[in-house]
Amino acid sequence: MKIQPDYKGEEAKNPHLDPTKPYPLEGVTVIDLTRVLSGPTCTRMLADAGARVIHVERPPKGDDTRSQGPYVHDGSSNYFRIANVGKESIALDFRDPDDHAFLMKMISKADVVVENFRPGVMAKNGLNPDELVKQFPRLIVCSISGFGQYGPMSGNAAYDTVVQAWSGLIAATGAPASEGGKATRVGTSVSDIVAGVHGYAGIVTALYAREKTGKGSTVDVAMLDTSISLMAQGLMASLGLDEAPERIGNRHPYMYPFDIFDCADEPVAICAGNDRLWSKLAPCLGHEEWVTDPEMCTNDLREKNWRLVKEKIESVLCTGTAEEWQKKIDEAGVPAGLCLNIDDARRLPQVVARGMVKEMDDGFLVMGTPIKYGTWNSYGTTKDAPALNADNDQIRADFE
Amino acid sequence: MKIQPDYKGEEAKNPHLDPTKPYPLEGVTVIDLTRVLSGPTCTRMLADAGARVIHVERPPKGDDTRSQGPYVHDGSSNYFRIANVGKESIALDFRDPDDHAFLMKMISKADVVVENFRPGVMAKNGLNPDELVKQFPRLIVCSISGFGQYGPMSGNAAYDTVVQAWSGLIAATGAPASEGGKATRVGTSVSDIVAGVHGYAGIVTALYAREKTGKGSTVDVAMLDTSISLMAQGLMASLGLDEAPERIGNRHPYMYPFDIFDCADEPVAICAGNDRLWSKLAPCLGHEEWVTDPEMCTNDLREKNWRLVKEKIESVLCTGTAEEWQKKIDEAGVPAGLCLNIDDARRLPQVVARGMVKEMDDGFLVMGTPIKYGTWNSYGTTKDAPALNADNDQIRADFE
Repeated sequence: MKIQPDYKGEEAKNPHLDPTKPYPLEGVTVIDLTRVLSGPTCTRMLADAGARVIHVERPPKGDDTRSQGPYVHDGSSNYFRIANVGKESIALDFRDPDDHAFLMKMISKADVVVENFRPGVMAKNGLNPDELVKQFPRLIVCSISGFGQYGPMSGNAAYDTVVQAWSGLIAATGAPASEGGKATRVGTSVSDIVAGVHGYAGIVTALYAREKTGKGSTVDVAMLDTSISLMAQGLMASLGLDEAPERIGNRHPYMYPFDIFDCADEPVAICAGNDRLWSKLAPCLGHEEWVTDPEMCTNDLREKNWRLVKEKIESVLCTGTAEEWQKKIDEAGVPAGLCLNIDDARRLPQVVARGMVKEMDDGFLVMGTPIKYGTWNSYGTTKDAPALNADNDQIRADFE
Repeated sequence: MKIQPDYKGEEAKNPHLDPTKPYPLEGVTVIDLTRVLSGPTCTRMLADAGARVIHVERPPKGDDTRSQGPYVHDGSSNYFRIANVGKESIALDFRDPDDHAFLMKMISKADVVVENFRPGVMAKNGLNPDELVKQFPRLIVCSISGFGQYGPMSGNAAYDTVVQAWSGLIAATGAPASEGGKATRVGTSVSDIVAGVHGYAGIVTALYAREKTGKGSTVDVAMLDTSISLMAQGLMASLGLDEAPERIGNRHPYMYPFDIFDCADEPVAICAGNDRLWSKLAPCLGHEEWVTDPEMCTNDLREKNWRLVKEKIESVLCTGTAEEWQKKIDEAGVPAGLCLNIDDARRLPQVVARGMVKEMDDGFLVMGTPIKYGTWNSYGTTKDAPALNADNDQIRADFE
């Protein structure tokens, strides 16, 4: 195993990660009709917060990601595992009348249903979300889809890269066209995952409102909407100034230096977006005189003359490694970071100390939970993802 | 104004956006000590869900973003506006004993406190989050920071680009090194915004748990943790296979074609990540024979031979525009998207229909809310961001 030597030690130091604390969503039952990534991300968060999540999978193969890599040594999919820790599994075919009847029985006793079919598929299977909430007025039914439950594109199929494209994320990422740069996909399925997080947020909001009023609700989350909501700076320009923002590479639109710089080996990220930080960075780079330089002394000037500023900074940075410079600049009180590969990032002592990698009961390592509560369990589930239909007997016993 | 002609019409068609519905977080009072972007994103979501959010700002200048562009025609910052709609403002100096006493009075009557100072600053100002929850056992205190409230890097200053760097996001984004590509910043402040969304999710979870148990809690959200949690695919490889994933540009790591392709003018995103979709894409491109081509007939083969597949696809796409091809491919049932600039994205009929741009009472346009409830108000606030200290009198009257 690859756990850091001090992993358990660090963990013990942090009461936030005490796995014996009660869970905040204890007693909440979730029927999880989702597949692939956006929906399972939402229901994994529910499981990590202590809800009972019953993953209903279609026989005979189950969730699509069970037959999608990367596969680990026992031949199982690590994609499925990472997205489905803490859940139970039952195989049900919606088109089979007995299975459908049992599903309805489960729903009648549940608090939450989550699905990420294409809009209309639930209704076609006799599971129209609006109708379910009418039939069970305390029920919360969350639908996560590419484009949402209504609107001219609601019927379109969506995968992460397509939504990243429509949302403006891809056009905003990468070097400017004037420098030969091209629109660039964000190097992780951010549109899927962020939609899942918003699904979680919407469900918990609806659970709170139900406690106050007794009323359930549908929750409709679209990957396109949630990706658009990431585009804050772009929207500031587009809505406020009627400007179409240009792709500007690694720079911040309104601060400089706030960019990625080449060192002798690897790049380093430096954020000195105000004059106070600039007055610390310049001497750290051996150029105290830059603080009062008439071309660079204010953020507005540095922003205007950013090419010059970048050239001057890189002419110094090329004399050392990224690691050396990151340390030195950070010690001078200026935010600076190494552009780590995720394999290094997850071994950072900070990431380990925060429990962002955790060990399951069977020794597998998965991602930890990013919300730490003082009062509630924040370690999240320690139960590995289920085999297909693994919990059939127990679920039948509980709901029949 | 740039509202689409049918904007209000579309809005009226969608009961999700009915602005007269009750809010899910009605009656919740939030003391908002945050500045800049991550914290204000969290508290804007609380305001959009109907909480009363009182933004406490430091005199004489208030939130940093009030003096940061982009500025709109009346000289005010659109950065501040977009991040702070629906909030009230009071100017209080923590170091002034009277102001501090009044702040404590407000906190004693509030449900939630949110802050995004560097860890330790709250305690230095007599506002230690753990102590506050001890003193007011029903209180929820959410701290959003770059690296979290504990761990070896917890004292480090953080800005978005630095956290993107440490988290693996930057190393994963951009063309592969083997093709001359460089690590690339995601072209929006994704680490700030996603931390704000998790802050919201944590607060609402804690509000639900409080309804059940009467207990408040601290909530500790780190930009680094939440950015790491976006790296699902990378972690699958790193944790499951002990592999450091390479940067692979715009491709998906396990499916092909799932990429961005050049057309005669602009690029188009196409996601045909399984054999069924490939059997639709190939004939749409005029090459039915690719479906059975021994080099391309399965996803595994296409993944292995992706350069060849890309070359073949682009040799067809170069005969038309991205808009023509997107339409044609989409009509064939294969997910495809244009890489829109955010200024075009926010004018998409789908984005307009979903209310993702909305008009404030004073006519300003801001981003809509990405969570739509059947039962609850999902239009969000229509109150523009406040002038500094605008609500002093009313707040004094309510809490004194």
